[in-house]
Amino acid sequence: MKIIMEPIGTIHSPFSFGDPMPVQSIEGRDIEGYIELLPEYIDGLKDLDGFSHIILLFHIHLNKKVKMQTRPFMENEYRGIFATRSPSRPNHIGMSVVRVDRVNGNRIYIRDLDIVDGTPLLDIKPYIKVINEKDKVKLGWFEKHKSRDVKWHD
Amino acid sequence: MKIIMEPIGTIHSPFSFGDPMPVQSIEGRDIEGYIELLPEYIDGLKDLDGFSHIILLFHIHLNKKVKMQTRPFMENEYRGIFATRSPSRPNHIGMSVVRVDRVNGNRIYIRDLDIVDGTPLLDIKPYIKVINEKDKVKLGWFEKHKSRDVKWHD
Repeated sequence: MKIIMEPIGTIHSPFSFGDPMPVQSIEGRDIEGYIELLPEYIDGLKDLDGFSHIILLFHIHLNKKVKMQTRPFMENEYRGIFATRSPSRPNHIGMSVVRVDRVNGNRIYIRDLDIVDGTPLLDIKPYIKVINEKDKVKLGWFEKHKSRDVKWHD
Repeated sequence: MKIIMEPIGTIHSPFSFGDPMPVQSIEGRDIEGYIELLPEYIDGLKDLDGFSHIILLFHIHLNKKVKMQTRPFMENEYRGIFATRSPSRPNHIGMSVVRVDRVNGNRIYIRDLDIVDGTPLLDIKPYIKVINEKDKVKLGWFEKHKSRDVKWHD
């Protein structure tokens, strides 16, 4: 079964492919960029500027690899791909929570970017604390890293 | 530009299409179900059982509508699709944070389900508090509803 998706826009950031990049948005703090939404979706942006944070789902278009296990760089052990945020995952969907600066026409100016310039955007969802935040959270292999600066990728 | 995805498995829940359903996982509290992962992805489940919560990205396969604005049912006003979690969005990607009960072979037993039985799964990501939780969050139109029971959909 194939599921066909099409980008709804493009994410613009200061990071070109191959540049050193923040590996999560928390580390990309204050890095600015913008989303250029396709004009046909502009009516869907109504009310978005009331939210301080949005969830971006995007296509990790520059990575074609699929691995079942990867070694996060602060780890010695290989971890299951679904227990990491590694980009080398089936379907190559990336997720990032960014701050909204302002919306102007079909452009959404955002901060806290950890995404490469030119990345195809698949969806935008509002970040809602009561829905997106959970109690009694256990972090598995990541637990010992949680008080460090968050730096982890494939 | 077309992006082709394939399900990595199927989400099984007590909710059939047409049943009354919880509209977010927080309202589906304790509802149990399981993910049946395709056998080729089983090695990717290593370490997943250390996490209490996972983020599921899935294909909202029973909804073919795309709307630019919808009226959340506790609202009188139409809101931009990207400022809501309505299923009638471009690309029809759904997102839910669920609790992990246990992993057994290619099955992940989960709780807090708000997903219809048979939904194609696209990705699993670990839920990590320091990455997924944000400070100084503003909720736009949803602000006045946040202390109510969370009940909202298209």
